[in-house]
Amino acid sequence: MAPKYAPSLRARLPPVAFLLQLAFIVIFAFCVKVDEDEKEKGEAFFYSYAKFQDIHVMVFLGFGFLATFLVRYGFSSSAFSLLVAAMAVQWATILHGFFLSHRLTWKIRIQLKNLVDAELCAASSLVAMGAVHGKTNPVQLLLFALMEVTGFVLNQWIVRTIFETGQRTNWLYSIVLLNIFGAFFGTMASCLLFHNKVHQKHEKEKSDRKMGLFAMFGTLFLWMFWPSLNSVLERNVSVICSTYLSLAVSAVTATTVSLLFSAKGKINLVQSSMLAGGVAVGAVVTSSPAPWIAMTIGFCAAFLSTLGFRFLKNHMLFAFDCHDTTSVLSAHALPGIMGWFAQLILRLTRISHSTMYDFPVNINLLIDFCDMRIY
Amino acid sequence: MAPKYAPSLRARLPPVAFLLQLAFIVIFAFCVKVDEDEKEKGEAFFYSYAKFQDIHVMVFLGFGFLATFLVRYGFSSSAFSLLVAAMAVQWATILHGFFLSHRLTWKIRIQLKNLVDAELCAASSLVAMGAVHGKTNPVQLLLFALMEVTGFVLNQWIVRTIFETGQRTNWLYSIVLLNIFGAFFGTMASCLLFHNKVHQKHEKEKSDRKMGLFAMFGTLFLWMFWPSLNSVLERNVSVICSTYLSLAVSAVTATTVSLLFSAKGKINLVQSSMLAGGVAVGAVVTSSPAPWIAMTIGFCAAFLSTLGFRFLKNHMLFAFDCHDTTSVLSAHALPGIMGWFAQLILRLTRISHSTMYDFPVNINLLIDFCDMRIY
Amino acid sequence: MAPKYAPSLRARLPPVAFLLQLAFIVIFAFCVKVDEDEKEKGEAFFYSYAKFQDIHVMVFLGFGFLATFLVRYGFSSSAFSLLVAAMAVQWATILHGFFLSHRLTWKIRIQLKNLVDAELCAASSLVAMGAVHGKTNPVQLLLFALMEVTGFVLNQWIVRTIFETGQRTNWLYSIVLLNIFGAFFGTMASCLLFHNKVHQKHEKEKSDRKMGLFAMFGTLFLWMFWPSLNSVLERNVSVICSTYLSLAVSAVTATTVSLLFSAKGKINLVQSSMLAGGVAVGAVVTSSPAPWIAMTIGFCAAFLSTLGFRFLKNHMLFAFDCHDTTSVLSAHALPGIMGWFAQLILRLTRISHSTMYDFPVNINLLIDFCDMRIY
Repeated sequence: MAPKYAPSLRARLPPVAFLLQLAFIVIFAFCVKVDEDEKEKGEAFFYSYAKFQDIHVMVFLGFGFLATFLVRYGFSSSAFSLLVAAMAVQWATILHGFFLSHRLTWKIRIQLKNLVDAELCAASSLVAMGAVHGKTNPVQLLLFALMEVTGFVLNQWIVRTIFETGQRTNWLYSIVLLNIFGAFFGTMASCLLFHNKVHQKHEKEKSDRKMGLFAMFGTLFLWMFWPSLNSVLERNVSVICSTYLSLAVSAVTATTVSLLFSAKGKINLVQSSMLAGGVAVGAVVTSSPAPWIAMTIGFCAAFLSTLGFRFLKNHMLFAFDCHDTTSVLSAHALPGIMGWFAQLILRLTRISHSTMYDFPVNINLLIDFCDMRIY
Repeated sequence: MAPKYAPSLRARLPPVAFLLQLAFIVIFAFCVKVDEDEKEKGEAFFYSYAKFQDIHVMVFLGFGFLATFLVRYGFSSSAFSLLVAAMAVQWATILHGFFLSHRLTWKIRIQLKNLVDAELCAASSLVAMGAVHGKTNPVQLLLFALMEVTGFVLNQWIVRTIFETGQRTNWLYSIVLLNIFGAFFGTMASCLLFHNKVHQKHEKEKSDRKMGLFAMFGTLFLWMFWPSLNSVLERNVSVICSTYLSLAVSAVTATTVSLLFSAKGKINLVQSSMLAGGVAVGAVVTSSPAPWIAMTIGFCAAFLSTLGFRFLKNHMLFAFDCHDTTSVLSAHALPGIMGWFAQLILRLTRISHSTMYDFPVNINLLIDFCDMRIY
Repeated sequence: MAPKYAPSLRARLPPVAFLLQLAFIVIFAFCVKVDEDEKEKGEAFFYSYAKFQDIHVMVFLGFGFLATFLVRYGFSSSAFSLLVAAMAVQWATILHGFFLSHRLTWKIRIQLKNLVDAELCAASSLVAMGAVHGKTNPVQLLLFALMEVTGFVLNQWIVRTIFETGQRTNWLYSIVLLNIFGAFFGTMASCLLFHNKVHQKHEKEKSDRKMGLFAMFGTLFLWMFWPSLNSVLERNVSVICSTYLSLAVSAVTATTVSLLFSAKGKINLVQSSMLAGGVAVGAVVTSSPAPWIAMTIGFCAAFLSTLGFRFLKNHMLFAFDCHDTTSVLSAHALPGIMGWFAQLILRLTRISHSTMYDFPVNINLLIDFCDMRIY
């Protein structure tokens, strides 16, 4: 069966893409300038460049190759991802410059950190694309991604304006927001647009072990570089160690649980549940949790996410006619929300810093707590 | 059909490779010493090491995997590329040390930046190899690559001696020269050596979607790290942003144009036109162009390169009996030459720095220009 | 033929993995704390992070994908490697903290360098796994890896306690020890456990050219990042250049020799002999050898290793009934031991620093030597 969009795609994609690309170049010509900051020379610059490069690899290689396990769609998905991400990055640079620079202005000055911001928006749209893979043609994907980026930037702007949070908290929020917003946007779009059309499309969902290795590559790159993503604002030992340990536990848990619920008793590692720990712990890193707390969060997130893969996807399909090709809801939204709850609990109990071997502190807290109840 | 060179290769490659390797070790023993510069300790050293590593990954992974899309030749091409690059690097270290150090001397002191120089020469020979892939056996490839490296180093030496340019300009020239020299050398060699023998070899040109994903990996690594290549001498925000935006536009344009000219109306992303923007903008980065100029260059380069892929390759074959397996002429030479012209135009008009929102500057220039005509 | 362990694996892996994971979390809760060193802020921190990331990529991507060339086992081997490495890293963090911190203590403070230590232990267990691939189920692999890590840490502890070497030498020893210990542990385990059961398992040893490209990816990542591994303690120009040149020669030699002994006269590049130069030179880098010495070591190591691949594996199988799936003995143990001998010779002759162009020095040494014999 030839893909449905084959005959007409040639007439549609080039004009749309050329027009958009031309419009972006014109906007860049009138509004965007490189900000050559004197401070960013030599090693300080190099430091920013390495941060930028980590995110760059994650977005284009990691998120771009996540869906290559679909055997009839692997090659296309990687090509479409590249096309969409390259567009989304330009659009995000413009929007981010307009709305999220220090004040509203039509003069945008870009630096490496603005490119990182733009790539995070693109990452969000690639997460959203996971829900509609195999059901859309590239023109739809392109417009879908640009809408997602617009929504994501607006969302960040609203969060910042309403809560009047400083740059710091806002930033760190965005790391988890990226996953949650992307996943919900994608699933919602999939529900609205493909309400009754999904049942005959299952052919493109077949996966394959050889192609699975490509997806494994993408997933592995995300898995390896996730500590860089979580530490995009502030790199310190605590953030790196927490994310690292959470991801290690997450990989073990995802493998094991996927085996537990597999019909054939085989490990199914294509799924991106092994990233769940990184997503969840991203919400918590601001309060620099103790290693064991990060590991527990990783364990719960991977467990939840693997259960979601097994049951949520089919449930969504039969109950709501909502088809989510690569299960972005389980892979990105569930762990993200879990991370928020964990953050809430940590803030309420304030035990995040301590481990058991700082026992006196905990006992003191306990005494304080008892005291409070006595009076 | 077994490859033609199978029976006799065993008798030929080992002696040639061993002799060359032995000769290199002897030359290294008499002439090469590691230069342990005191300044290069700690973080400064680390800074050089990261630069070196970026180029290292590009040469061995990126250029090495570019030709893996050839289904009957994928595995061999990656093995041959490694063999050839590992040899070329040693030969380039020697030649570069003899001819391009501060003065002619037989005592070569190597540092990380010399290894980077050597790798750029090896990259040039890998570009050239693209034109003769599938038509040569490894012994021929080895000698071909060593000749290419010799030619490339001589070329750099001539450029430096004749034009008496300082180290800086010379260096930056080499980034684009690398592509242009490699592509012309490869095509020329292919024309001369395989004049009437190409028609029966088309079997090795078949490509495949699964193998295509490997080539996609190689291309993607080049695409992601190209900003590092263009900034090999001077890393600043302007170089990185220009290359990055040019590559983004280039990826969008290459995808779209390839679809426009595809017989089946399918996207063909194996081709390396998406790198054209990076090649072309490499010639311009010295004048730190505004973002929109870099994007326009990326657009034109990718357009030209994709057209080249579609028409130039067949035209060359039928008109000149010249067969260019992976179309290096379109992928590397055309964008490079376009970049030179863009550089020329930018230097003549001197508008490179300004964007439209610095309008007054342009108007002043215009007034100056009118003044000049009045007097 | 379905894999033998399929029906019962579901009942065994989850309980074992969950129990181990739970135990690790509990131990982390009581004993492990992140050490937020004030010095490790900003660029100094970034420097450590980049070192950590290089090793991270090598362990999880490089060693994890080394065995993907086994066509019926490629996907599983990458999944199992990830599971095992993620567990081994946690166990190694605990053990390393208990035994190899400044003094024996139950309070472990972790920093990035501790994670690097832990990853090196995990790398050692992945090397050992190479010998038992395809003959073990994941539960066995998991326990096997934890035992290997325990043995490796104890070994390091004994070396340090007996020889009372400082941190520095000890550390550098471990880079080569990692390969030798892992290889011998793996082969020994394979001999003891699978004495008479290997003959019917050869089916899983088939390799394939397409899958071979994945293994090529893993090998290439190891090959490219090996200079980072050898310079894990001390990064200087000499270590990087030595390892780099040794690896280049090693790649050429491995390719050529594999062709020489191949039955079909084809290059066989799946084998990891091209890494032999890196392994061997790792034992020598402390004495900062001249480039030609590093290259000679690379040549000999690759030669020895390729011969081992061709003859040692079959010999071991027929003579000792000892089956070594990915020939870890030839790939890691032989070059490592050769490196030790080279180190010994260099120390005895003390010619390591000089090249031929420092002739007077050698002549002086010669004169000294003659003098010694005269008196």
